[in-house]
Amino acid sequence: MGLTVYLSGEIHTDWRERVIEGAEGLDVTFTVPVTDHAASDDCGVTILGAEPDKFWHDRKGALVNAIRTRKGLEDADVVVVRFGTQYKQWNAAFDAGFAAALGKSLIVLQPPEHDHALKEVNAAAMAVAREPEEVVQILRYVLTGTLPG
Amino acid sequence: MGLTVYLSGEIHTDWRERVIEGAEGLDVTFTVPVTDHAASDDCGVTILGAEPDKFWHDRKGALVNAIRTRKGLEDADVVVVRFGTQYKQWNAAFDAGFAAALGKSLIVLQPPEHDHALKEVNAAAMAVAREPEEVVQILRYVLTGTLPG
Amino acid sequence: MGLTVYLSGEIHTDWRERVIEGAEGLDVTFTVPVTDHAASDDCGVTILGAEPDKFWHDRKGALVNAIRTRKGLEDADVVVVRFGTQYKQWNAAFDAGFAAALGKSLIVLQPPEHDHALKEVNAAAMAVAREPEEVVQILRYVLTGTLPG
Amino acid sequence: MGLTVYLSGEIHTDWRERVIEGAEGLDVTFTVPVTDHAASDDCGVTILGAEPDKFWHDRKGALVNAIRTRKGLEDADVVVVRFGTQYKQWNAAFDAGFAAALGKSLIVLQPPEHDHALKEVNAAAMAVAREPEEVVQILRYVLTGTLPG
Amino acid sequence: MGLTVYLSGEIHTDWRERVIEGAEGLDVTFTVPVTDHAASDDCGVTILGAEPDKFWHDRKGALVNAIRTRKGLEDADVVVVRFGTQYKQWNAAFDAGFAAALGKSLIVLQPPEHDHALKEVNAAAMAVAREPEEVVQILRYVLTGTLPG
Amino acid sequence: MGLTVYLSGEIHTDWRERVIEGAEGLDVTFTVPVTDHAASDDCGVTILGAEPDKFWHDRKGALVNAIRTRKGLEDADVVVVRFGTQYKQWNAAFDAGFAAALGKSLIVLQPPEHDHALKEVNAAAMAVAREPEEVVQILRYVLTGTLPG
Amino acid sequence: MGLTVYLSGEIHTDWRERVIEGAEGLDVTFTVPVTDHAASDDCGVTILGAEPDKFWHDRKGALVNAIRTRKGLEDADVVVVRFGTQYKQWNAAFDAGFAAALGKSLIVLQPPEHDHALKEVNAAAMAVAREPEEVVQILRYVLTGTLPG
Amino acid sequence: MGLTVYLSGEIHTDWRERVIEGAEGLDVTFTVPVTDHAASDDCGVTILGAEPDKFWHDRKGALVNAIRTRKGLEDADVVVVRFGTQYKQWNAAFDAGFAAALGKSLIVLQPPEHDHALKEVNAAAMAVAREPEEVVQILRYVLTGTLPG
Repeated sequence: MGLTVYLSGEIHTDWRERVIEGAEGLDVTFTVPVTDHAASDDCGVTILGAEPDKFWHDRKGALVNAIRTRKGLEDADVVVVRFGTQYKQWNAAFDAGFAAALGKSLIVLQPPEHDHALKEVNAAAMAVAREPEEVVQILRYVLTGTLPG
Repeated sequence: MGLTVYLSGEIHTDWRERVIEGAEGLDVTFTVPVTDHAASDDCGVTILGAEPDKFWHDRKGALVNAIRTRKGLEDADVVVVRFGTQYKQWNAAFDAGFAAALGKSLIVLQPPEHDHALKEVNAAAMAVAREPEEVVQILRYVLTGTLPG
Repeated sequence: MGLTVYLSGEIHTDWRERVIEGAEGLDVTFTVPVTDHAASDDCGVTILGAEPDKFWHDRKGALVNAIRTRKGLEDADVVVVRFGTQYKQWNAAFDAGFAAALGKSLIVLQPPEHDHALKEVNAAAMAVAREPEEVVQILRYVLTGTLPG
Repeated sequence: MGLTVYLSGEIHTDWRERVIEGAEGLDVTFTVPVTDHAASDDCGVTILGAEPDKFWHDRKGALVNAIRTRKGLEDADVVVVRFGTQYKQWNAAFDAGFAAALGKSLIVLQPPEHDHALKEVNAAAMAVAREPEEVVQILRYVLTGTLPG
Repeated sequence: MGLTVYLSGEIHTDWRERVIEGAEGLDVTFTVPVTDHAASDDCGVTILGAEPDKFWHDRKGALVNAIRTRKGLEDADVVVVRFGTQYKQWNAAFDAGFAAALGKSLIVLQPPEHDHALKEVNAAAMAVAREPEEVVQILRYVLTGTLPG
Repeated sequence: MGLTVYLSGEIHTDWRERVIEGAEGLDVTFTVPVTDHAASDDCGVTILGAEPDKFWHDRKGALVNAIRTRKGLEDADVVVVRFGTQYKQWNAAFDAGFAAALGKSLIVLQPPEHDHALKEVNAAAMAVAREPEEVVQILRYVLTGTLPG
Repeated sequence: MGLTVYLSGEIHTDWRERVIEGAEGLDVTFTVPVTDHAASDDCGVTILGAEPDKFWHDRKGALVNAIRTRKGLEDADVVVVRFGTQYKQWNAAFDAGFAAALGKSLIVLQPPEHDHALKEVNAAAMAVAREPEEVVQILRYVLTGTLPG
Repeated sequence: MGLTVYLSGEIHTDWRERVIEGAEGLDVTFTVPVTDHAASDDCGVTILGAEPDKFWHDRKGALVNAIRTRKGLEDADVVVVRFGTQYKQWNAAFDAGFAAALGKSLIVLQPPEHDHALKEVNAAAMAVAREPEEVVQILRYVLTGTLPG
């Protein structure tokens, strides 16, 4: 058994690297969104032509990015959604809802201060982790039956 | 043709009333989550027993509420998701993602200041409205072909 | 047994009226798109605000109209798609493809001059009719077993 | 992450070659319909026996071709639909509707003169491109996060 | 709880009447194919125009009839398929396979002499009945918990 | 919003009556399996003929009962599964798994002594209740937003 | 593009060999039912124990065989169903109905004398072939665009 | 044709080893739950933090284990569920129900003493086996058409 794991959410810390490096040696295929913030914002207009109105500038980019995120979500066995301490992060919660409706196994990665605000998201999840290393430990256990320590 | 419309999201203003009253006379069945904040937070422990740990207190409540929200989302033809100016509102974005994955017609109701933060949610929507009255006008047009003015 | 029938396609002749009137007395619920050409083109900007760029003007309207057409297509048992002699009518063919993928019973209503150009659409259909009255006769037969004459 | 991309629509220009060659080196599997016009028209009768009536001649061929096009559409992550400047091209719009109903990511490739006639198709798409090279740039960005220039 | 029951198969005996009359008073909605043999054979050409080739004559009729049979099968909770002692009755077995793939509860009504030839069909069924009255008893038991005698 | 609620599991106490009576006045449609133990065991052979081998006696009955239980499970919004203190009750756990795979909201009703043995079933549920009255309170809250006390 | 093709139906002639050998060199994976008539009839009782009643003897075997036939049907892109000149062949028609409900591309291989009796099955098919070599030609055309001659 | 087979249920005897070793040389991919009882019970709290309340201790573990069991069930062609002579084994029956709802081919492995208690589970299965070697024989027959002896 191998797992395909989509890593959704916050893009300003190194949590993806910590998960991917920690999972080295496990039979996991990771997929991720484009995490280059500028490219992600401007991909639509760069390829398909400028838009004077920021609303449609955003729309063009969001749709192009959705080709990748939908593919990542639909192909995944497990979707990890990271909520950081900053920003609205509505796209992370949107991905969590999307994954839940598809019946994916959801792991939420978030600091305790968000517990109450994320209670609906957490209630749809198989695990609420605090650190990327816990996500790695879950993946290792799910794939090999081995617990840490 | 009638429509079933689920009104998700922000619970601190009168937007639901404005939509429901505005749509009077149209063949719309509205469904809504429990909007009594205290009841919504405490329903799990009140019915099923207290929890010393707030995390599980929240979990119990969120799961009980999910019986209603899932039913509302799954039965809906149209899901309106309202983002206000306060709070994290991750459950609103979660509902939007859930609705999108189910192929529901999504209407986002939000102030322009959230445009960029909501660009992924908006890109999955059939309409981005600013005022509840616009939602009413959309429902009226969809059902009767009549435009305002 | 009753049928829900969505009448898609050409909006410049009276074919919908002929089908609906002809089917009087049968247990059929008809649904139709908005057939007011101007309202259909402008619904998006009228409700949600003007767009200087015609491309987004069209996008706003098409998305609002899709709330109705998707509902009509998804609820239908039978989808009748009419191709007239004028215009590109790509939205009619799009509806036909959408209906086919959902497994709906498709009836194509078209003049013989389009036979070759519509061969892929026809091949997905249960019937290719030439006149609205033939559609009525099919509905009558399907519901009552009665043939004309 | 790799992508399977079905290239639907117009068969009289070299757009497919430009997309496929441009995408060299990317992890994309392209599928295409039979683009030999004569073979596509006559496959049914050539294999299964002649038909005196052109209508059934077309039906036999369209059904045999549908084995390939349905497989292409159903296996695809992304469906690119090209509308050229000539012909009715209803099969292209039919494929677009079919892909949309299956939840595929749709890219429409069309000249601006068709914008209004294609507004419903465009509204279901992740991108509206003008040149095959833009399709390549989208695929490259979706797979590698790299933008042109 | 009510049941929708589709009565498929043999059309030359009074088994449908015996089931429907026997079930009087139960909360059952019965649906049936067109059982007028001549109308069923000729519906396509009568409405849509004659065909010199019997193969296409049959195709036209079979497709028109499929509008009704697909609706009947898809809406049913229970599909009863009757195999008589004469004819090939491949459409009955086809309906049984169609119903099985949709997850419908299947009841096969057949004489013991067909047991071996129908073993694959029977293995997909909830019950193999010999007489229409047994079908009625099953429906009564399923709806009311009452057994005969 | 109304709810359809299937009451699965233990048949030797009055828990179904307590739920149904407690929910009087709420917009709930309850469905239940046949709870007459003898009828449930013997329905197959009584209607379709005796079997000398108890294994096939059971099979015939279980299949006939499945017509009702599948219908109940598939139509339900909420599935309540009651585990009592006696017997194996594997059919109750089977129903719970069936309901979970269909995405139904699951409520488990069980005494605390079964907590560990039911941990996988509970983990798929929206609520674990101890008394039928708690189930009623959940249904009342879900439908009306009203909490006890 | 490769195809997975399930070869269902008649087991007393060499049609499967002719299709498989004819398709040599094409990217096709063929799957077939167990075609050893005796093994197919007796597999259930041989492995799981004798049954004095032929009805249950058949049931045991049919269910074991269904593990293979369901897998073959569900994994297939194309299902070829062969009807010979002898026997009832209800399992062939059952497979055809099952495949049709799953949306598989169906090819019927049958002699003209069965045309009328198979009209419902044919109407659900992409092609009605008379000889195994025609099936091969269809597969070659679908995969390579090459027509015979 | 290869098969993916999930081995669910009892973890205190060597039945999985006997099935896996017996099937050596066959094209079968076996998947299994974590069968280390202690790890399975404690995985949640070991990774995600201790819980003073055994109920939530169990919940945390059951949810983490569900990531693996859901993946195993969803990817399987065949689900073998073993019921031993001890314990409640409700998770085994839950898995059986889950598999049945997904349309998986189910094989129940159980001693005859459980026949009556398992009649609903058995009625959803393709085979009821008594010994692991019978499961192996079924898999060999399904894949190769070869019967024992």
